[in-house]
Amino acid sequence: MCQLNQNKVKQFLPILSWLPNYKKSQFNGDLFAGLTVGVMLVPQGMAYALIAGLPPVYGLYASVVPQLIYAIFGTSRQLSVAPVAMDSLLVATGVSVMATEGSEAYITYAIMLAFFMGAAQLLLGLIRMGFITNLLSKPVISGFTSAAALIIGLNQLKYILGVELEKSNQVYKILWSAIGKLNDTHSITLLIGILGIFLIKGSKKISSKLPGALLAVVLGIAAVSLLGLDSRGVSIVRDVPQGLPALVMPDLSLETFQKLLPLSLTIAVVAFMEAFSVAKAIEAKKRNYKVVPNQELVALGAANIVGSLFQSYPVTGGFSRSAVNYQAGANTPMASIISAVLVALTLLFLTPLFYHLPHAVLASIIMVAVAGLIDLGYARTLWKTNKIEFGLLLATFLVTLQFSMVPGIVTGIVLSILILLFKAANPHIAVLGRVKGLEEYRNVKRFVDVETWPELLVMRVDAPFAFVNIQTIKDRILAEVHKRDGKLKFVVLDAASVAYVDATGVIGLRELMDSLAEKGIRILYAEVIGPVRDTFYRNRLVEGEASEVFFLTTNDAVNYCLSGEYANEKVALVTQRNT
Amino acid sequence: MCQLNQNKVKQFLPILSWLPNYKKSQFNGDLFAGLTVGVMLVPQGMAYALIAGLPPVYGLYASVVPQLIYAIFGTSRQLSVAPVAMDSLLVATGVSVMATEGSEAYITYAIMLAFFMGAAQLLLGLIRMGFITNLLSKPVISGFTSAAALIIGLNQLKYILGVELEKSNQVYKILWSAIGKLNDTHSITLLIGILGIFLIKGSKKISSKLPGALLAVVLGIAAVSLLGLDSRGVSIVRDVPQGLPALVMPDLSLETFQKLLPLSLTIAVVAFMEAFSVAKAIEAKKRNYKVVPNQELVALGAANIVGSLFQSYPVTGGFSRSAVNYQAGANTPMASIISAVLVALTLLFLTPLFYHLPHAVLASIIMVAVAGLIDLGYARTLWKTNKIEFGLLLATFLVTLQFSMVPGIVTGIVLSILILLFKAANPHIAVLGRVKGLEEYRNVKRFVDVETWPELLVMRVDAPFAFVNIQTIKDRILAEVHKRDGKLKFVVLDAASVAYVDATGVIGLRELMDSLAEKGIRILYAEVIGPVRDTFYRNRLVEGEASEVFFLTTNDAVNYCLSGEYANEKVALVTQRNT
Repeated sequence: MCQLNQNKVKQFLPILSWLPNYKKSQFNGDLFAGLTVGVMLVPQGMAYALIAGLPPVYGLYASVVPQLIYAIFGTSRQLSVAPVAMDSLLVATGVSVMATEGSEAYITYAIMLAFFMGAAQLLLGLIRMGFITNLLSKPVISGFTSAAALIIGLNQLKYILGVELEKSNQVYKILWSAIGKLNDTHSITLLIGILGIFLIKGSKKISSKLPGALLAVVLGIAAVSLLGLDSRGVSIVRDVPQGLPALVMPDLSLETFQKLLPLSLTIAVVAFMEAFSVAKAIEAKKRNYKVVPNQELVALGAANIVGSLFQSYPVTGGFSRSAVNYQAGANTPMASIISAVLVALTLLFLTPLFYHLPHAVLASIIMVAVAGLIDLGYARTLWKTNKIEFGLLLATFLVTLQFSMVPGIVTGIVLSILILLFKAANPHIAVLGRVKGLEEYRNVKRFVDVETWPELLVMRVDAPFAFVNIQTIKDRILAEVHKRDGKLKFVVLDAASVAYVDATGVIGLRELMDSLAEKGIRILYAEVIGPVRDTFYRNRLVEGEASEVFFLTTNDAVNYCLSGEYANEKVALVTQRNT
Repeated sequence: MCQLNQNKVKQFLPILSWLPNYKKSQFNGDLFAGLTVGVMLVPQGMAYALIAGLPPVYGLYASVVPQLIYAIFGTSRQLSVAPVAMDSLLVATGVSVMATEGSEAYITYAIMLAFFMGAAQLLLGLIRMGFITNLLSKPVISGFTSAAALIIGLNQLKYILGVELEKSNQVYKILWSAIGKLNDTHSITLLIGILGIFLIKGSKKISSKLPGALLAVVLGIAAVSLLGLDSRGVSIVRDVPQGLPALVMPDLSLETFQKLLPLSLTIAVVAFMEAFSVAKAIEAKKRNYKVVPNQELVALGAANIVGSLFQSYPVTGGFSRSAVNYQAGANTPMASIISAVLVALTLLFLTPLFYHLPHAVLASIIMVAVAGLIDLGYARTLWKTNKIEFGLLLATFLVTLQFSMVPGIVTGIVLSILILLFKAANPHIAVLGRVKGLEEYRNVKRFVDVETWPELLVMRVDAPFAFVNIQTIKDRILAEVHKRDGKLKFVVLDAASVAYVDATGVIGLRELMDSLAEKGIRILYAEVIGPVRDTFYRNRLVEGEASEVFFLTTNDAVNYCLSGEYANEKVALVTQRNT
């Protein structure tokens, strides 16, 4: 009893499953990984805050408390929970229609969003809805991510070119506006941006653990302050407030809630998707713990809710950062605690150093990060292997580019469900014949050497009998019966793949059986799974001896028909019922 | 070539398949049925117009032109296309928010609705979307119909009680308002209504062909005019305009279109549903022609569009009326032409007779008609056999009662799809063992006498590998592998029920195969259908000899594993790929 409760507590507080047994041998890896990620997080957090339309320091705030909370509740031991590019852009596109970018109201909305998004994740986790992410198929994720990466990247053009461009989530607007201002390009800014990109990409090529972004930041600050580039028109970060994030109670009005609800739900799901997929990928490599979807929702929810009380905007587990954490040797969430402390120390002591940091360097960090998210290879593979799903990817990509991310992801999900429905509505149905010399039955259209009989029709339906397909199934079977009219006495249905029969399926089956009975044709079922047999009995679809309706194998049913063992009166009996 | 064209013309103009060969022997049945339905249509049409909030004569207008048009384009030979109760109420609930009931604008909207609804049906038919009705499952139809019948019936209370009640599509509002006015009940009106109900129900019991409604109408008119009941407060129909419906061009403004669009689409689908299901039911009994869903959409669309040019409001094939037409012996749509002529003659010569017709008689006709639509028996059956689908019925019923019909039917469809998705996301997966002494494999949880082996795991997944379920499938298989870790060398997947593998499924399968390969476990597939094998090849999920990956039967695969025929190096090779 006590053991059971302890397990329950551990499930809800996964920190209890590693902290009490924490070993010194684990600390070396955690320390190195924690410092590596911390050093990465400082420039990255500031850059992502910029995407979100927030002052850079908010990226640092969001890198402190959420990491600590996730370390307590999270089931992944390497996930690094802090700002990510995609969520930051979602914040920007959503909040910018509610308040002026950079204003007090804008910042308040972004933080409230973290609160509501966290609440949504917590709720989804508690009611065990972790499976909803299954609704996002790979083509949808790929199309959405590529489009979002393009939008994010292009929105950084203004910092690289050193011109004013309207923020937009429509690619053609940004491009158009950029082309119009090409002549105003600030060449020193552009040079800094391009050098930044080369530096970060170059150091990545040498080793993924090299802090290329930090190098770019240091060199950028040095160049600006030594050469006085800010007085020559290079846009810089200027004052970054010193000190830890403060405890600020959120303003929980119904009005704010209604305004932010749709966006909160979208970010909640998209953020969980990203965190969960990277957590699963790392779990598959480590194999010494298990990632639990619903507990992940709880952990991310808690991280966002508590974070929002400490001036944090929406966070989640990022792809690249978590990968770096894992590769640098993180053994436990202790690594995340160490990076949180490093960011906190930066906030306490080092913010004055960032005064001269050029915006162009932050933009180059973002551009390199999102360029890696554009996946042309997968689109090409799909084009070759599956045109419909390529279309799904393309549609999601184009809608996201044109109408921004929420419509993009909704379109993707709706189209995936429609494709699934369409496939469910058009099940694979085959006429079978006996493979000569064997007891196996195969599709007569695919196999040549199969035996059939004039008095006997053997068919297989590879789908449950449900409202979407029962009409089609009935029509197809009756069409085959119609072709053979006259001699046909039996229909044997191989029901091995019929996973269930729903209420509409029951009515359709009854109509089918009535139609067949009127023609004096008997229907037998083979390989019916237990739950489906139960449905037959409950709905009285079986009359007479079950042993003369259900057969273990298709061959048993066929042999029964061919042997003449059956009582001919049975057929007459069933026919009478309907006249 | 000429033959082909002729067939195409016949498909589009089904009248050509019966009129050229029309026989005198068919005429007797058609004449009797046509007269029976015509006599039924006059009071019914006027009553249904009342439901729709239109002057009674519009019910007669809608019973002339649409029947003639449907006779040309329709594939059913007994369907009677004229006003029906459900569509009439949909018209009332939809149009009453746009204009005052009975006003010129109201009538115009109702007729425009027929035009747009017809256009929607025509379009759906031309792009071959007839299958969309498959999205409506029986529990949803049943719940929706019962609730709609209750709403329609209760809305007639005011005519039976002889009091003013606000028209509403919320049941509790009508009941509340009726209870408040119970003291004002007009007793003569109530008496007429109750007698009407008994008369109609009584004559129905004697024979379904007896024109009980007509009898009630005649007796009602006689009683009012002989006893002067109108001067004693009985509400009567008064002037019914004489003459055929006139050709009036519709006012096709974009504004009207936008206003009426959602309602048009709903009525288009609901009306098609009703017509198609009764047409299919009669086709199943007659068997000398075929009802074609897409052509039915075209025919109903044409009937509504052309009808709307002649002052007709939305029409469709009604349940009870078509059944009477069939039972009275209709052989061809000639019967419908005859009933249209009968209604036209009534409009030309007999409308003055309806001056003294009491509203209470029309209300009694409606109440009897809709009472038959409330189906408690089906709800009871579902409660016993399938709790989830009972919940679906109940939810549709309650939402329709509370929020009216469009939200009701949308809720029903969305819930059905969610249930389908939930089932698709949780496929039936079984561990199999060999039935002792046979070559068959069965679920080890359901069958006792089955053989298993420590080095071999045989599993069957009863679902396609798609984005909604691949994560679950992967987790379940790996969980079974985990239980057996150490000795396990082979996983045999019985893929007989895997109808397809989508792009997300391919990635999931590759992850599964990689995980297994890392553990030195080989995966073999049995009973894979052709299209799925193709997917494997296209995505390079198979390496090495296909004959050592795909097996005809599960038993073949198992024997191959047990025999030691396999090359041990193969396993090593596959493992290397991932390290």
